[in-house]
Amino acid sequence: MIAIGIDIGATSMKAGLVSDSGTVTKERSFPLGEGSSNETILSGLRELVQNLIPHKPVGIGIGSPGPLLADSGVLLSSANLPKVQNLPLKACLEEEFGLPVLYQNDANCAALAESLFGKSADWDSCLFLTLGTGIGGGYVEKGKLFGGFEGNGFELGHTTVVIDGALCGCGHKGCVEAYFSSRGFQNRYRERSGTDLPLAKDFFQRVNSGDKVAKEILDEGVLCLAEALRNAVHLVNPEGIVFVGGITEAWNLFGEDLEKRLRSSLFPILEKRLKIAIGLPQAGIVGAASLFFLPKV
Amino acid sequence: MIAIGIDIGATSMKAGLVSDSGTVTKERSFPLGEGSSNETILSGLRELVQNLIPHKPVGIGIGSPGPLLADSGVLLSSANLPKVQNLPLKACLEEEFGLPVLYQNDANCAALAESLFGKSADWDSCLFLTLGTGIGGGYVEKGKLFGGFEGNGFELGHTTVVIDGALCGCGHKGCVEAYFSSRGFQNRYRERSGTDLPLAKDFFQRVNSGDKVAKEILDEGVLCLAEALRNAVHLVNPEGIVFVGGITEAWNLFGEDLEKRLRSSLFPILEKRLKIAIGLPQAGIVGAASLFFLPKV
Repeated sequence: MIAIGIDIGATSMKAGLVSDSGTVTKERSFPLGEGSSNETILSGLRELVQNLIPHKPVGIGIGSPGPLLADSGVLLSSANLPKVQNLPLKACLEEEFGLPVLYQNDANCAALAESLFGKSADWDSCLFLTLGTGIGGGYVEKGKLFGGFEGNGFELGHTTVVIDGALCGCGHKGCVEAYFSSRGFQNRYRERSGTDLPLAKDFFQRVNSGDKVAKEILDEGVLCLAEALRNAVHLVNPEGIVFVGGITEAWNLFGEDLEKRLRSSLFPILEKRLKIAIGLPQAGIVGAASLFFLPKV
Repeated sequence: MIAIGIDIGATSMKAGLVSDSGTVTKERSFPLGEGSSNETILSGLRELVQNLIPHKPVGIGIGSPGPLLADSGVLLSSANLPKVQNLPLKACLEEEFGLPVLYQNDANCAALAESLFGKSADWDSCLFLTLGTGIGGGYVEKGKLFGGFEGNGFELGHTTVVIDGALCGCGHKGCVEAYFSSRGFQNRYRERSGTDLPLAKDFFQRVNSGDKVAKEILDEGVLCLAEALRNAVHLVNPEGIVFVGGITEAWNLFGEDLEKRLRSSLFPILEKRLKIAIGLPQAGIVGAASLFFLPKV
């Protein structure tokens, strides 16, 4: 079985053909940015899907940041795509291509992919974090995705770590996403140095080359993310945590510190069994397509 | 059917006979404090159970703060009962009374009672908070208790709201329990005024009589609890939140402010359907006994 998987992120949409063994072929992408509107996204999706349709997929699976209405297929808004509002993704694509469309939060999709094809496939329960422009979260227990209300479960990026802290794209202050994400690092760096860093890579290059401000911001971010993860672990007691997303490429700059801080903050009974791993690079696309590969409940 | 329900708290253990319709009779209590040891608890339990045995209960249900091992029935430790360590509750009581013993986190018990007999019985999912000496948390979805790993699920009291903040009984800094609980209010008040308040009631009386320091501490606590609740709601998207425990008696002093702060921090889609209610005063006892009233899975 083959399905189209689409991962809508803040800087690009990625699409590919995904087999039910988790293999991705014909991957393509379409650029997005802060100026992208409903129409930008729809025309990008048309272009991406058009190219994949000849391969006879069973349907189109889409993941995007939320808040959203998963069942009716509407992207309500997104902290890092400020011009997108109430976008009826499912209705538009179903009408245009005559194929079934399934929709979920992007981090929930990544969670699904990881729990089907990744290291956590035989864990009892797993928390998934997408570390990219923002932070997404997902949770799978006994092979079942915890979607939450209308697909809005496990929005770990929008949990508070600093009361009245830095302004987040969601409008609230002090979310962990404002301290540990590409957008967060860029904003904090601009505040403290006056310098714009167009890409997350630029930020990590500065950390690497000994830039004190960048290092401070990363350390603060690690501390914030460790506490946000502590909170989630003390709530749902996962057997492990899997990290995916672009920022994991810089894992060597923060991973050890993050794990140490997290572990030292946990109840020993939860810490002892906690596994930590880096996930599949294409988890977003694979997971979106996997919405079609789940056993019917 | 009748079972014994026992609620172990930091200042007392309460026990009663509970019918499978949720009615409590023959309620008794036994005082506990910071000096209570394993032996204090065991001798208190013996005394409480002895008095209820003649009524032919089917078993003894116990709830206590954690961390714990629910299945094997061991209380590992507790932030507010510092002398209690690795207490084999289940084994001791089963041997002594020849009755089956079931054990769970106290807030999980309260969650169970509320979901069976309380306002939330027909809600899709509900987060439960016990506001007492500490803060406990529980979660029920579609009638099923989320126990977590070995009964350690939803320890909301030990989620961080102020990084490197006030020291909590659990040893970590900045837990919400250090800012909004009897022990938390008392410790914060002592720090800022030098005055010991033996009871939570004394603290709320000071708030009521216009004491500025007490009011400031309560306001700070409300802010912290609102953010901790935001975090839990953004993770598991409950249809409602039910509060139980002694501090709910002072709800008129903080409830409205707490609800306002929480609601203004949530994604609109989650805020709109969120219900907030005060639960049953005997939820702890009823829930512990209810461990015997659950349908076998």
